[in-house]
Amino acid sequence: MTSAAPDARLIADFDARRPAALARAISIVENQRTGFDAVLGVLHPRIGRARRIGITGPPGAGKSTVTTQLATAYREAGLTVGIVAVDPTSPFTGGALLGDRIRMESVALDPGVYIRSLATRGSLGGLSSATRAVADVLDAYGFDRILMETVGVGQSELDIARSADTTVVILVPESGDSIQTLKAGLMEIADIFVVNKADRPGADRIRTDIELMLGMRAGEALRNVPAHHGVDLKKIMNPARVAREAAASDQTQTWTPPVLRTVAAKGEGIGDLITALDRHVRYLEASGELRRRRRQRLREQVIDVTEHKLRQRLWRDDGTNAYIDSVLSAMESGTETPFTVADALLGRSGHLLTRT
Amino acid sequence: MTSAAPDARLIADFDARRPAALARAISIVENQRTGFDAVLGVLHPRIGRARRIGITGPPGAGKSTVTTQLATAYREAGLTVGIVAVDPTSPFTGGALLGDRIRMESVALDPGVYIRSLATRGSLGGLSSATRAVADVLDAYGFDRILMETVGVGQSELDIARSADTTVVILVPESGDSIQTLKAGLMEIADIFVVNKADRPGADRIRTDIELMLGMRAGEALRNVPAHHGVDLKKIMNPARVAREAAASDQTQTWTPPVLRTVAAKGEGIGDLITALDRHVRYLEASGELRRRRRQRLREQVIDVTEHKLRQRLWRDDGTNAYIDSVLSAMESGTETPFTVADALLGRSGHLLTRT
Repeated sequence: MTSAAPDARLIADFDARRPAALARAISIVENQRTGFDAVLGVLHPRIGRARRIGITGPPGAGKSTVTTQLATAYREAGLTVGIVAVDPTSPFTGGALLGDRIRMESVALDPGVYIRSLATRGSLGGLSSATRAVADVLDAYGFDRILMETVGVGQSELDIARSADTTVVILVPESGDSIQTLKAGLMEIADIFVVNKADRPGADRIRTDIELMLGMRAGEALRNVPAHHGVDLKKIMNPARVAREAAASDQTQTWTPPVLRTVAAKGEGIGDLITALDRHVRYLEASGELRRRRRQRLREQVIDVTEHKLRQRLWRDDGTNAYIDSVLSAMESGTETPFTVADALLGRSGHLLTRT
Repeated sequence: MTSAAPDARLIADFDARRPAALARAISIVENQRTGFDAVLGVLHPRIGRARRIGITGPPGAGKSTVTTQLATAYREAGLTVGIVAVDPTSPFTGGALLGDRIRMESVALDPGVYIRSLATRGSLGGLSSATRAVADVLDAYGFDRILMETVGVGQSELDIARSADTTVVILVPESGDSIQTLKAGLMEIADIFVVNKADRPGADRIRTDIELMLGMRAGEALRNVPAHHGVDLKKIMNPARVAREAAASDQTQTWTPPVLRTVAAKGEGIGDLITALDRHVRYLEASGELRRRRRQRLREQVIDVTEHKLRQRLWRDDGTNAYIDSVLSAMESGTETPFTVADALLGRSGHLLTRT
């Protein structure tokens, strides 16, 4: 199952920066077509230069507008931009996302911008590995910034966060009511908060709510501080102030997610967002967190690739499928169970699993 | 890695229909705790009696209200009901679902109803296998009807459809605008359509839209009909009528999803839904489709169980993780890639993968 060498012409055209080769390479890795691993293997040493920015939030928060504005601003600064719009295709959310794609047309004609929609519903490898693979191709091609956008439903927002160096969570004033229930999930993924449509009522309140939530995180850290000379530090310290002071004392070693305001439809606040993104990259680099995140991505990629190979070997084997079919009746009658069948299947599949 | 015998006391208590044993068995299989496979293996021969009904639709369609009303109606008919409320936990949708759970309280105190919420965000096995496993436990315990409800985001609605004998898709008049874009996904999963909140404006229009969509499916089938004596059948036949006639000619061998109207909050239309569910089961049995769907579930369970065992063997092994750590630097510098590492890892892991 060792892969053949990748299509030499494709790689040569890719190196010559021909857009058709870029599109073809992306299609191959997105759909895990024959040779996708060889293509990614050849490109692997060239990745690591691009900054990968994940953008997520609830439906209607203006993610595509913010993404388009960011792309425009980066282009004005002379940087090239790859956009991966991840659509966790659902019969019930598909329509909204289609609309989003259309709204991106203002940057779609710029040759310095490349937009790719991913809709890998139910794919074996999952959105997470498809997103990472497509971002790898864009990175190897030489894009300076890679914007990965997805609506936060299911676990697509987790997949995006895993694929990004920096994750931006976009909320709107209307998200305020649910912020208390969102706490854990948001804290897990957000490096930067954006309150978009901040000219609407409620923008201040949601900003306060988020900052309160961030203060609670500092409070959790404090629980590990031992009582000092009989004084309970937790009782005399303001968690939010502790977090601010920690951030101020060494801006490059700790990170408290800023809460920015934008009115993306008018371009307001996008400059501040770019500044915050730049500041976050400096923090990632100085603290060693960038290397840690990228190593974690490599680990996850090894796991994905290994499991993909195992699945291919097992489930595309005629003998395996014939074996399962032969025991279906026994499972229906209860004399075998899926667990006894799985054990037997692994016992008889050694040659498939370990061949090189 | 062969499993130990399951806790004999747990199984005895389960057989004595003690609710505490039911709750414990569900927790064990939901969280894939030690011995979960032994529990499911013992229960496996007892499953197959319950009817499994999946209920899905967009946020706000009234899924929990319909579920509660169905449960109430089944209880009045002397049947017991297990409810699996699947929450594809997202930081952005969590709040809405929490509200749904609370609305189910009217049936929650009835000892003939058992409600379990599943929120297995990012779990290895995925929602699909957790849902199926919990439904298996409820089935083995003796519940007559198992209602599995989820909001249609991500691919949770696909997972539910895979776990159910019959899938009910609930829409509301407001869903009408997006129905054209929903087509493919809905046709894939819906056995019965319900237009809930049908006392609102637009109910007739969405019903017509769905029926048109169903007619288009018949139209697609017609494309395979060859021209007959020079007459193009496609041009003279009304696809919707063809579908209706096909359904009328042999009600037990073909199935056209009915489009029902409910006002679930007032209990209106629930009787018709129960009738349609009964009619669908008769179709499933007479056509052989029930056996086909259940065999497909068994196949998928064998695949899930096998992959779960492989993952456990590989990724919980200290040697495997130490090996990945040892090649991280080489992957960073580009002398190794995740693909060469995966090949090497499979080559050295034969003893882990095939041991019995």
